[in-house]
Amino acid sequence: NTRYRIALIPGDGIGTEVLPPARAVLDAVGRRHGLSFGYDTFDWSCARYRAEGAMMPDDGLDRIRHHDAVLLGAVGWPGVPDHVSLWGLLIPIRRQFRQYVNLRPIKVLDGVPSPLAGATGDVDFVVVRENVEGEYSEIGGRLNRGFPDEMAVQEAVFTRPGVERVLDYAFTTARRRGGDLVSATKSNGIVHTMPFWDELVREAAGRFPEVAWRQEHIDALVAKVVLDPARFDVIVGSNLFGDILSDLAAAVAGSIGLAPAANLNPERAYPSMFEPVHGSAPDIAGQGTANPLGAIWSASMMLDHLGHPEAAAEVFDAFTSVLAMTGVRTRDLGGTASTEDFTRLILEAV
Amino acid sequence: NTRYRIALIPGDGIGTEVLPPARAVLDAVGRRHGLSFGYDTFDWSCARYRAEGAMMPDDGLDRIRHHDAVLLGAVGWPGVPDHVSLWGLLIPIRRQFRQYVNLRPIKVLDGVPSPLAGATGDVDFVVVRENVEGEYSEIGGRLNRGFPDEMAVQEAVFTRPGVERVLDYAFTTARRRGGDLVSATKSNGIVHTMPFWDELVREAAGRFPEVAWRQEHIDALVAKVVLDPARFDVIVGSNLFGDILSDLAAAVAGSIGLAPAANLNPERAYPSMFEPVHGSAPDIAGQGTANPLGAIWSASMMLDHLGHPEAAAEVFDAFTSVLAMTGVRTRDLGGTASTEDFTRLILEAV
Ligand SMILES: CC(C)[C@H](C(=O)O)[C@@H](O)C(=O)O
Ligand SMILES: CC(C)[C@H](C(=O)O)[C@@H](O)C(=O)O
Repeated sequence: NTRYRIALIPGDGIGTEVLPPARAVLDAVGRRHGLSFGYDTFDWSCARYRAEGAMMPDDGLDRIRHHDAVLLGAVGWPGVPDHVSLWGLLIPIRRQFRQYVNLRPIKVLDGVPSPLAGATGDVDFVVVRENVEGEYSEIGGRLNRGFPDEMAVQEAVFTRPGVERVLDYAFTTARRRGGDLVSATKSNGIVHTMPFWDELVREAAGRFPEVAWRQEHIDALVAKVVLDPARFDVIVGSNLFGDILSDLAAAVAGSIGLAPAANLNPERAYPSMFEPVHGSAPDIAGQGTANPLGAIWSASMMLDHLGHPEAAAEVFDAFTSVLAMTGVRTRDLGGTASTEDFTRLILEAV
Repeated sequence: NTRYRIALIPGDGIGTEVLPPARAVLDAVGRRHGLSFGYDTFDWSCARYRAEGAMMPDDGLDRIRHHDAVLLGAVGWPGVPDHVSLWGLLIPIRRQFRQYVNLRPIKVLDGVPSPLAGATGDVDFVVVRENVEGEYSEIGGRLNRGFPDEMAVQEAVFTRPGVERVLDYAFTTARRRGGDLVSATKSNGIVHTMPFWDELVREAAGRFPEVAWRQEHIDALVAKVVLDPARFDVIVGSNLFGDILSDLAAAVAGSIGLAPAANLNPERAYPSMFEPVHGSAPDIAGQGTANPLGAIWSASMMLDHLGHPEAAAEVFDAFTSVLAMTGVRTRDLGGTASTEDFTRLILEAV
């Protein structure tokens, strides 16, 4: 019997409604695999910010540093500026815990229509996004504020170790999947960092001679993701390009409302964090109608990361078979099921 | 009778095949509107680079500075690095002639299928891309080349005048169209420049109180462009965001192969440049099968910029009616017509 300690951060809005289903699913699948989960719940959120002036306590990161993983619901609430809720919680966790891989699986699921006329179950790829440096560096600022010659600068910073490690993760993933790798770039233009990225991709490709790869400029690539999503297997991109590609790809697959994300520290020196991509959804919060699939799929990714790919696959198979074989849906997918009813079906399938 | 001097730069590959049709269409529509065009053709291209070591002569920009407009085919050829062909021709023209607006109309055309299941003729918007500063600045470089601590940086630079002028253009466009404006941003994250962009958008909105506007984060925005393209009217974005959005939107509309682009200096202090978005297409060059619509649509945008919206509309109506009412297509759209045959049909319609 293996025991894991999981830090639960429900956050705001429907974040608090989708974590209990994820937890129930984890417990159910865990029983069959000799895994047990101990949960510590943290009330870090915009609500806490309003009450106490901070999204999390000063020693917040220390309190979860030794957990095996973090499962997050959603953060953000009207009236609390994004930079407060994100910089006060999500971003410190990603950066201080060196979660340099943001992993987003993209699949067209049976029973969840894609907006593309021709997209089928062949669409099955992952976006590997660099998650701690690149275009989203903390370096930059503003000059001559309020004057006609005002300006703002933002420094994109790409380091050799920072790029190499995410490329190694992406190539390893492509090798494991037996697929190919596409690197998102923009080295034909005026960006000094992208030729460097390309060089490091070529070097990494040398370390993985069995993996076929190519590069595509980001503008052409977003078009191809729409025109022929089935041709992709692993796409690796910088922090910004990966951010854009992962939401775009989820939309193409029809699954933006149930997409999961893993923020990984592959070395396991720090806990990794798993989060549904949907936000806190103030408009439907508190009604018990949230779709729990993003959180449940995220929990499945957590199982995989903890070294239990079979348990992970069982969770995935359970909810995809419910989607494929029943018409039961939550409101976001055009149905009338409550979070609870829908979760019960998935628990039965697990 | 108004006379214009047009600089023609056919460039490489099919660039040389699509400009003659555009020119024939301009002459035909011009006759009806009392416009005549004098053309000067420049052989600036990768072929010239191979023969003479430069894409254009040292005084190239001076030779076209006093033309009324530039019509460009395509530049780029295998064996000539992109940075040579782009920095040696396209980018200097955009930057030295202060073509700070890159305008890309997005339309689902009758007879040209969109990859989206539900997209219809309601899709009709423009992307206004900032075209000379922002993320594609020339500032940045590389440190410790080849060593483990190697790094590369790229500075995104946003200036108040640089942003204000493109926003004014975008808001003016939205007002003229009677539509609304969406600003692409990413100010929820870690990018110092985007809150500044947002402030300038709010200021610009104050100058155009009759224009409804909103902002969307780029990751969510690319998803919405796929999920509901009909809801957009004018999207304004920085150099990088606009670059990504314009190719994405053209793909969504099914028209990546026939999309036009205008690089505008709205003040007309310098010539503006009009170019089809497709490249030089080495694989089909020399066969007389290139689709001339990107160049012809670009010529229509040129007419509009020169102050002849009716002539521009006639060109647009001519080729869209050929697409809608005949099954004649060039190979890229699944047909068998040659460039010449297809152009003849359009000339008849004009
Ligand atoms: C070729 C490249 C430099 C160019 C750009 O990024 O501006 C192209 O993508 C475009 O959109 O015109
Ligand atoms: C909310 C925002 C800061 C975040 C990001 O850009 O990383 C989000 O878009 C994501 O993809 O997780």
